Amino acid sequence: MSILVVGSVALDRIETPFGSAERALGGAATYFAAAASLFQPVQLVGVVGDDFPTGELAFLEERGADLAGLERARGESFFWSGRYDYDMNTRTTLETRLGVFADFRPRIPPSFRQADWLFLANIDPDLQREVLDQVSAPRLVACDTMNYWIESKRESLLELLGRVDCVLLNDSEARELTGDYNLSRAARWIRERGPSIVVVKKGEHGALLFTETHTFFAPGYPLEEVFDPTGAGDAFAGGFMGWLAYTGNMDEDELCRAMIYGSATGSLVCERMGMERLREVGVEEVHERVRAFRRLTAFDSPVAPVHG
Amino acid sequence: MSILVVGSVALDRIETPFGSAERALGGAATYFAAAASLFQPVQLVGVVGDDFPTGELAFLEERGADLAGLERARGESFFWSGRYDYDMNTRTTLETRLGVFADFRPRIPPSFRQADWLFLANIDPDLQREVLDQVSAPRLVACDTMNYWIESKRESLLELLGRVDCVLLNDSEARELTGDYNLSRAARWIRERGPSIVVVKKGEHGALLFTETHTFFAPGYPLEEVFDPTGAGDAFAGGFMGWLAYTGNMDEDELCRAMIYGSATGSLVCERMGMERLREVGVEEVHERVRAFRRLTAFDSPVAPVHG
Repeated sequence: MSILVVGSVALDRIETPFGSAERALGGAATYFAAAASLFQPVQLVGVVGDDFPTGELAFLEERGADLAGLERARGESFFWSGRYDYDMNTRTTLETRLGVFADFRPRIPPSFRQADWLFLANIDPDLQREVLDQVSAPRLVACDTMNYWIESKRESLLELLGRVDCVLLNDSEARELTGDYNLSRAARWIRERGPSIVVVKKGEHGALLFTETHTFFAPGYPLEEVFDPTGAGDAFAGGFMGWLAYTGNMDEDELCRAMIYGSATGSLVCERMGMERLREVGVEEVHERVRAFRRLTAFDSPVAPVHG
Repeated sequence: MSILVVGSVALDRIETPFGSAERALGGAATYFAAAASLFQPVQLVGVVGDDFPTGELAFLEERGADLAGLERARGESFFWSGRYDYDMNTRTTLETRLGVFADFRPRIPPSFRQADWLFLANIDPDLQREVLDQVSAPRLVACDTMNYWIESKRESLLELLGRVDCVLLNDSEARELTGDYNLSRAARWIRERGPSIVVVKKGEHGALLFTETHTFFAPGYPLEEVFDPTGAGDAFAGGFMGWLAYTGNMDEDELCRAMIYGSATGSLVCERMGMERLREVGVEEVHERVRAFRRLTAFDSPVAPVHG
């Protein structure tokens, strides 16, 4: 029951009010894999340049990840540099150098093509669709996207939506894609175009799950120290898909639990710089965070009826 | 077990992208009373001008509210005019005319002084303290405030904090008061200055409860149509205090339920213009909304342990 992820593997330069990191391990596929591999084996497809410190990915292999789909090309690895303001919620991208990622054409190794769970991290929707052409019949296909593709590749993105089961995207992306500020209506618009499961991520304000029959909300965890939110959205997706793949179940209850597992891995990421926390965390700590989420939101129905 | 509320009773002019209202019943004490009186009798202390259509408050009396503390003074009633942007989360105050509210000095009628539950709505902290001098020994004193008082009457506000059990305030107010962006730390700062219960309201993003032993999160309800959020924060406070007063209990479980009852009344308000929805709603609809909140956030712990 492997999880196949296709997306960026990068080197990041991160500045926050509390510290900075140079050439830190980054990329959507990396954060996703780091979280998902806590639950289930991951197969990763991406590309890095010849400057990439591949040894940094050893922790993924120790968690059972298969990196046979990670190409090594001549040139520079995908590089992203960003800065967070004091509120840790406003991020400024200082520089993006695509490097070898500019010519990335995902080639899914034959041994990966039977994957039951597929996550198309945020890349060109043309490429996301090329991946779909190469896999057989996943039980669940989920994708992410970003404003850039919504603006520049709208038609391709809409075609992609017709071929996936689940979309995870940010609130601003959901609003831009649908032209509707209201997230409940925006999610319905998206569901009408294909995916039966829509997850809207709201950063520190949590995430909403919309299906035909249910709406579920997972809060952001009220951390006393947010160190670096880089990768939190991809770690959310990794925890979400990882949990579903682990249970092999996608009924309503399991989707809700998956939302909490995603929130747990997403919140853990923020506690340290870059991938540091996710790299060393164990699954028992994720369960403990899930129990903390339960304490955070659980309430009993009232015992007695009310007058009036 | 009456609930005493002291604060503004106003006439509002509201503009939203979906409609507008002129001389609509408003004011913090009014919204609070409309919500709280669904659960328990309310005693209201405030002031209106001779232009005020007192008949508009009849629905409160039908819910058992005692308006003996509502002064009628010569002059204009407190008037507030505001406009909401399309996102319904950004509010611009167009005009505030204090009218008779400028000279308001709360006089608590002798029959109100034994109230067990006291809510000091957002007014000058000097006046909030004067109210405390006039009541005997409430079981729970809660207060609201606003940025204006944080900036102009900080010392008085800090003295007030030392005399109340519970503070309800917005996230931006909590940040400004404490100088800390992080809401968990901000809440601890406030608790260290007196109140054992801190509720931070985040508008559409929900509300957080902080006590010494517990943190609880109540989400904003994902309405498909937000018509007018005016008064939602005060209706939250009314549902919160109303529920506590109804149960007569302030243990951890009941505080969490109260957060949900507050969120329920706060979300109902937004479904129509001004006080329209709160005026006609019945307590059974509030319970139904509470059950919807439960469906929105409830998840079971995982059935099986996870490998690894």
